[in-house]
Order: sequence, then C-alpha cells, then structure tokens
Amino acid sequence: MLKDEVLKILLSSGSHVSGQDISNKLGVSRTAVWKAVTALKNDGYDIESVNNKGYLLTKNKSILNEAEIETCMHLYDCKVFPKILYFNSIDSTNTYAKKAADLIPSDFLVVADTQTLGRGRLGRSWSSPSSTGIYMSLCIRPNISLEKASMITLITAMAICDAIEELYNISPLIKWPNDIVINSKKICGILTEMSCDMDGIKYIISGVGINVYDTEFPDDIKDTASSLLLETGTKTDRAKIISSAIYHFYEDLDTFMQTEDMSILKSKYESRLANIGREVMILDPKGEYPATALGIDETGALIVNANGKIKRIISGEVSVRGIYGYT
Amino acid sequence: MLKDEVLKILLSSGSHVSGQDISNKLGVSRTAVWKAVTALKNDGYDIESVNNKGYLLTKNKSILNEAEIETCMHLYDCKVFPKILYFNSIDSTNTYAKKAADLIPSDFLVVADTQTLGRGRLGRSWSSPSSTGIYMSLCIRPNISLEKASMITLITAMAICDAIEELYNISPLIKWPNDIVINSKKICGILTEMSCDMDGIKYIISGVGINVYDTEFPDDIKDTASSLLLETGTKTDRAKIISSAIYHFYEDLDTFMQTEDMSILKSKYESRLANIGREVMILDPKGEYPATALGIDETGALIVNANGKIKRIISGEVSVRGIYGYT
Repeated sequence: MLKDEVLKILLSSGSHVSGQDISNKLGVSRTAVWKAVTALKNDGYDIESVNNKGYLLTKNKSILNEAEIETCMHLYDCKVFPKILYFNSIDSTNTYAKKAADLIPSDFLVVADTQTLGRGRLGRSWSSPSSTGIYMSLCIRPNISLEKASMITLITAMAICDAIEELYNISPLIKWPNDIVINSKKICGILTEMSCDMDGIKYIISGVGINVYDTEFPDDIKDTASSLLLETGTKTDRAKIISSAIYHFYEDLDTFMQTEDMSILKSKYESRLANIGREVMILDPKGEYPATALGIDETGALIVNANGKIKRIISGEVSVRGIYGYT
Repeated sequence: MLKDEVLKILLSSGSHVSGQDISNKLGVSRTAVWKAVTALKNDGYDIESVNNKGYLLTKNKSILNEAEIETCMHLYDCKVFPKILYFNSIDSTNTYAKKAADLIPSDFLVVADTQTLGRGRLGRSWSSPSSTGIYMSLCIRPNISLEKASMITLITAMAICDAIEELYNISPLIKWPNDIVINSKKICGILTEMSCDMDGIKYIISGVGINVYDTEFPDDIKDTASSLLLETGTKTDRAKIISSAIYHFYEDLDTFMQTEDMSILKSKYESRLANIGREVMILDPKGEYPATALGIDETGALIVNANGKIKRIISGEVSVRGIYGYT
C-alpha cells in the first residue's frame, strides 16, 4: 500500500522530507502523497507539514503495522528478513501461520495487535488484549531432524531475553524450557508447533506472546503474570522489540545450525536459566518428585539431581514447577 | 447412505436375506431396499434375487468402498475402529488427512481408489492408478513426545507385513525404516507425517501405498517395483488387506505404548528386516560409507557396523541404500 511506503520513508528520515521527494521516490503524484499522509494522520501518526520543508513524523505513538516492523527490522543487520504478515485482529497467529506455511515457501512472521483465540501450551488460552502485547509467530524451515526441533524453543526464549535486555537494560530469566520471567513474574510465553515427516522438519512455528504495556490481567494469571511496562516503568515500541528479537533469533539459529545442537549456546542459555541451582518439582506422569536443576545438556534437555540421581528431563514428558516465586 | 447399510447386511450374511428382513432391520420400505439393491448392482455387485428366498451377494468383484471396509473391519477384534473416510478419487490421502485432523478429534482412516497427486517421501510423487492399489492414511493421536514419533513408521511397516502374511501366506521384508519388499521388489511405501508442539504429538498421519493388482509400472520404478498380484499370483480384496493391516497396527501400537519404545517389538521388527546382516550404503550428507546392518535399537534407530565402529542411524539424517537386489 502507498501509505506503508510513505510511512517507511518518514520513519527512516530524521528530518523533514518534501512531498516532491516522496513523490519522486515512489513515482506517484504529490496529491497521492498528500492523501497517504492524511491517511497516516487518521491512523494516529503525528505528522508535521511545514511549507517549503515538507513532512516530519514528530512522535510515534507505538502504532504497530507492517511498515513500522519492516523499517525497524532494517535497522538490524539481520541474516534473514522474514516476510511480515500483520493483522489488526486475528484468531491466533500460530493457527494462521500453520495455514500459511503450506502456501508461503519462505520464512515469514505473523504479527497481530490482538488475538481472538490466542493459544498457549496444553490447549490453554492466551489473553491477547489489543494495543498492549506482542503476539507473533515466526515460521522457519531449518533442515534438521525432528528429534532436534525442541531446541528451537530454547533459541526463541533466548532471543526474546536478548531483545528485552537490549531495549530495557534488564536481564530476564528463562524458566525451562520456554517461559520468560522478570522479578519472578511471567512476561512471555512461547508455543512452538511444527509439521514434520520421517525425513525431517517441514516447518516450525515459534509462537510468542509478550506482555508489553499490560497493567491488569485476568484473575487466573494476575498473581503470576506481569508486563514489561509494570516491571520496568518504561514504554518501548513493539516494532523495536519484535525486530530485535527476530535479529537475535537468527543470530542464535545460525550458531545452532553449525552443530545442530546446543553445545555452543549451552552456556548462554544457562546464564539465563531461572531454575539453575534451584529446587524444582518434576511433574512426571508416573509421580511427582523434587530435584535440583543443574543446567541443560547439548540436546536442550534439563539435567536435574533427584536425590543424588542425575536425570535428563525432556519437554513434553514432564513439566517442571519451580518451588520458588513464580511457578 | 441406505445403499451402504444394505451392502453391509449382504456382505456379512453367507446366505439369502429376504427383502422384508432387510426392510425391518433398517426401518425402511421394501421399495427402498429394492432401490438400494438396484444401485448396488449398478456399482458392479452381483446380487442374486430369488423369489421367497431374498437377496444373495454371489461374487465380490473387489469393489472398494466404506461399507466393504467397515464390514471387513468388524471381522477383526480391533482395539480401535477408526472412522472410515472413503473417496473414489482424491488429491492425496495424506494431504486430506492433515486437513481433516484439525476437524475430527478421533482416529480416522482416509482411503481412496485413486490419487491425483499421490505423494511419497522427499517430495516424490506416488503412482496411484485406479482400482489397482491401496492408498490410505491413518490418523492417530498417541500421547507420546515427538522424539518417539518415528517409531510409528516402523509399527506401520510391521502391520502391512502382518496383513500380507496373513492373507497371502508369504513373508514380506522391511527395508529400514519403511519400504516393504517381496522378492527384493518394492510393493509398499510409507509416508509418515505429523503435527506436534513442545508438549508432544498432536496427530500422526501414517500414509500407506500398496501395489495390489498392478501389472505394469511407470518407467522410473518398473525395475524396482512389483505388486502383490505379480509376486503371489493371487487376488485378495483390498478391504481385507486394509482391515487386517489396521487390526495389526493397533495390536502393535498397544504393545509399543506399554514402554513407549521398541523394546518389546524389536525382535519382531528385526525378523522382518531385509537389511539385517547385509551390506548397506549409509548416505550421510557428510559422505557415503558402507556398513553392515546389525538390527535396530529400542528407539527404532538402525544399528550398523561401519568398519568396526558401531553407529546409530536415525531416519531423516541419512538414507540407507541396499547394495543387493532392490535398492
């Protein structure tokens, strides 16, 4: 859309841009540029128009859209630029991504301002109010066998932590395998889904929900959940968080692909691991037992000491419950 | 459909059934029964109508449909009766099953007389001429972690062998992990596809293509492929083969679920393993090498001796090529 192209020019320019320059750049009339600017103002953008100087985007009100995300993403030296599919409202970014994966051959990122049927792990719903969170699903197609797919969840968790650390100057922790906590409160969840056959992965959808500007939560999670705004007091553009996370994700994915395991990334993941050295309850279907989390191995499994016995915990077989703070 | 219900009654009765009996059983008029019988005759069934005795299905011309499969399936003491979805023609039973899996919560079996876009492994096509083969996809939802999913392919291969052995009195062999051979010729291929998240398997589609009555093959496979008819000289109803395979599949799946690995089924699988004790080429992306196949381990991996070194081969990481007969 022309509006998006005009927005990209205004976003990436620090000073006034003349209507003529925009019109030349995009090969459209000045009237078309003026109409696009008017449409952007209606979307909530503050755009100053000064005679003989042109247009200036004065203040970004944290609006989320394709142009915002793409412009931010180009600020990073990304190894891969996934195609961006943005929706004001969608049932679930993961559900949509699974359908789109059969139609789009490249990597792509589905982002929505709100989800009407947001999903979490184990069939739980994911609260997805409008204009407060990040709901996104990245579809990738790494050439790995299905036994290795669960490590993508760990890489996603690290990427979200990296983005938050970069933009908020705070170090979030990971509750193995996939929840991200700040001050023992959950601010992000990850739902990884995939399609595979016996020859390997067809695609992996890494779904991410981040509480960004939330100030209140549904009753069932209000004691355990928080948002980046509540924990840091700062507001950061969602497009920046998304772009930073995608950049860090592809950085670590590249490292992972060198060995197709966590051997290089193990120490980085463990430095973020909330559970390390702490007591956890292993919710084995055959019976719960307490253990001390020691770290992960090169397959991404959690290694625990259960009463002197070293055990390897695989996601999906058991759940881990912290016996401290956020559970 | 009424026609299917009448057919089921005729199929499961060895002698004449009166129109009145059928009409009473199904709660429909005798005219409706007569119309259904006429429709079945049009489908190709030989139905004898004798005054005062009733209808007798004299000869089954290997017609495949839902009623045939369901009637056959009830002859087995199946642990699970998957819902049957039969199509005269379909693009691909696996493609259909993947779409249906999001809509049907139970196990189900998609069967087609012909496929217009039949698929094999690694994006290859699967020749699927009408009235000659079995093209079916079973959707199951075992509560297992994704690391264990590849074993379902081995269980499927064993079930097809069991069905052929039961009905043809011949012992097919399995080329690890999933091709079935008779006299070193391929008569069946399996394409297992699945959808999972980090908590486990959502569904597994076990797609099976069996060459039943084929007497000729496309050029690219004519030296390596054969059919049950060509190798045994016998014609057996496809509905019987399907039902027997489904029965044996659920038997072995039950055994598998006791330990969630191949420990109990290992010796059974190995007794069918064509590669055992023979030279194979391991097509490792890092470089091919010859090895001797020793058997499988409890995870279903192929264990080989490569120049004195014991290696564990995982499907999807390497391909195995036999250096004998059928490759």
